[in-house]
Amino acid sequence: MKSIEWTGTELVLLDQTKLPTEEVYIHCTDWREVAESIKMLRVRGAPAIGVAAAYGLILAAKEAVATVVKEARPLEDQKVAEKSLFLEFANALRTTRPTAINLAWAIDRVVTNIVVEADSITAALPLIEAEAQAIDHEDVQLNTRMAKAGASLFVGQKGLRILTHCNAGALATAGLGTALGVVRELHKEGQLERVYADETRPLLQGARLTAFELHEDGIPVTLLTDNMAAYAMGQGLIDAVIVGADRITTKGDVANKIGTYGVALLAKAHNIPFYVAAPYSTFDFTLADGADIPIEMRNPEEVMNFGGTQTAPKGIDILNPAFDVTPHELVTAIITEEGVLAPPFTESIGKLQKLISEV
Amino acid sequence: MKSIEWTGTELVLLDQTKLPTEEVYIHCTDWREVAESIKMLRVRGAPAIGVAAAYGLILAAKEAVATVVKEARPLEDQKVAEKSLFLEFANALRTTRPTAINLAWAIDRVVTNIVVEADSITAALPLIEAEAQAIDHEDVQLNTRMAKAGASLFVGQKGLRILTHCNAGALATAGLGTALGVVRELHKEGQLERVYADETRPLLQGARLTAFELHEDGIPVTLLTDNMAAYAMGQGLIDAVIVGADRITTKGDVANKIGTYGVALLAKAHNIPFYVAAPYSTFDFTLADGADIPIEMRNPEEVMNFGGTQTAPKGIDILNPAFDVTPHELVTAIITEEGVLAPPFTESIGKLQKLISEV
Repeated sequence: MKSIEWTGTELVLLDQTKLPTEEVYIHCTDWREVAESIKMLRVRGAPAIGVAAAYGLILAAKEAVATVVKEARPLEDQKVAEKSLFLEFANALRTTRPTAINLAWAIDRVVTNIVVEADSITAALPLIEAEAQAIDHEDVQLNTRMAKAGASLFVGQKGLRILTHCNAGALATAGLGTALGVVRELHKEGQLERVYADETRPLLQGARLTAFELHEDGIPVTLLTDNMAAYAMGQGLIDAVIVGADRITTKGDVANKIGTYGVALLAKAHNIPFYVAAPYSTFDFTLADGADIPIEMRNPEEVMNFGGTQTAPKGIDILNPAFDVTPHELVTAIITEEGVLAPPFTESIGKLQKLISEV
Repeated sequence: MKSIEWTGTELVLLDQTKLPTEEVYIHCTDWREVAESIKMLRVRGAPAIGVAAAYGLILAAKEAVATVVKEARPLEDQKVAEKSLFLEFANALRTTRPTAINLAWAIDRVVTNIVVEADSITAALPLIEAEAQAIDHEDVQLNTRMAKAGASLFVGQKGLRILTHCNAGALATAGLGTALGVVRELHKEGQLERVYADETRPLLQGARLTAFELHEDGIPVTLLTDNMAAYAMGQGLIDAVIVGADRITTKGDVANKIGTYGVALLAKAHNIPFYVAAPYSTFDFTLADGADIPIEMRNPEEVMNFGGTQTAPKGIDILNPAFDVTPHELVTAIITEEGVLAPPFTESIGKLQKLISEV
């Protein structure tokens, strides 16, 4: 099962809101369908929405070309109009969700590398497609390199019990996953006993997606509700926590799915290492402080209902932040495709930025 | 709405599994229905199951008398048979759920105070009924005294934002509630801004019961998923945590709904006071160490499904402890009907035990 696939004419997305009971695919031929799929979490996970949005730009470019070309006016005007329309669509895609930086990163990469330089969107079209495919294929490779880097933290260890939160797996990326890429590598090497998956309310990505994809791959997984993580740690069931990330600042503050901050505090209280796995596209080199990361507040209905069943009385107030920020002090190390970053993060993340900018 | 009512012939229980969407009452005329209601969490909350079980003993006594009387044998034999049958029923009720000590406490109180001394169950019947009613009425009064004692912790404070976990309210007791009794007192005195209610997976007692009963009473309540508690604390939204308890040891270790231990750790990390409200019937004076409290493991289906919707793939492992233990080091103070117990708890709980035994 591939969660994101570009066929050359359409973007096929596995509708993750329907898992684990149904495997439904959405065929997007309009960038608006891609935007809507991102907004509705049919495709989710920071790297995956970056990849999906990049492919969405091909559809946006085609529409910009088709729309403008019909108008009779000087060629130069047409080119400007095309570009301006494309950038408008790109911006709409870019702002579908605010927290995961990979989304903005993927769009900015296509715009900066291709569109800004291009003579016209018509001329740029094959290059936009190639860049989107490059982002996709690179993500696959980054995941594999991250998996190896992450596994290096556990050399000589066996019977590992890893707790994870939300889904930072194959369903959240184009490849093996970030946190679950590491888990898969440990499993392949015979070092993994099992994964403990927080169910991750309100949208249950842990139960519906993480438990699902690990079970499909034959990796032992134990599901627990979010509020059982402290119990599991207290009972000595957890050797390490590995999670993904939606945005990492230059200080090493980490925005990730709501509940991650709590898990990090619990891990610290139990002297359990807390690792974050994320590719360079998750780093926001323009932000130092995690408090400056915009946090998406989602619809109260997600908390008040489940599967069509009302879970709370009507008329009460609801808190529904989709993410929280884990301060760098709680992060043991960050696993990237360029290796493991250790504290002090300002230094190690600075080195990563230098390395990336030199490539 | 009264959640437990003895009519003289039957025990009427509000079916809490149906809240907040339906108000259904169960009319128990057989102690087995009471036992089943406790097991299925139709009635829940440590003090409430103590009260319900005490009333269940009236039904058990009636059945013991009715069953034995029909047999033709010497009166003394009949009395022995009656008592033995009653004690068998009482034991079945006593073992419906293992963690909350109030259940065993209420049954032991009736057995010790009435049944052991009684000439026969027939003779004891009115006394058993009176004792059950005394347990019920005392709980109402204890709640009120606890509420006042708890409020004394917040003298001069206004605009209080209190986080609670699970339901330690009117639905969990015969009166105002333990933790929510304190909340109601603070609200009455104009000191409360709002309650933040953890939804409390897997059975959502926070969403279904706490949010419901506070909303009914016009007390502002904000519902959040369990994994949002750390976020709320980090944002400075919480002034204090108040929870109930299912069993407290002589050291001050506290068994309560799964997730409480995590909340206590998070409160500590944010320098937020963590209070436990519980009457003397929740103390287990025979246990020092919380690790010795038996923890009920419940059906995996509770975690894998919600409202008839499957939330996780079939075939995976599930963790489902109904309770966890918060070590005394994380407890700021324990609110009882005899006042607030401060650390060192071995000393303050020792004094409480002395006080109770002298009454």
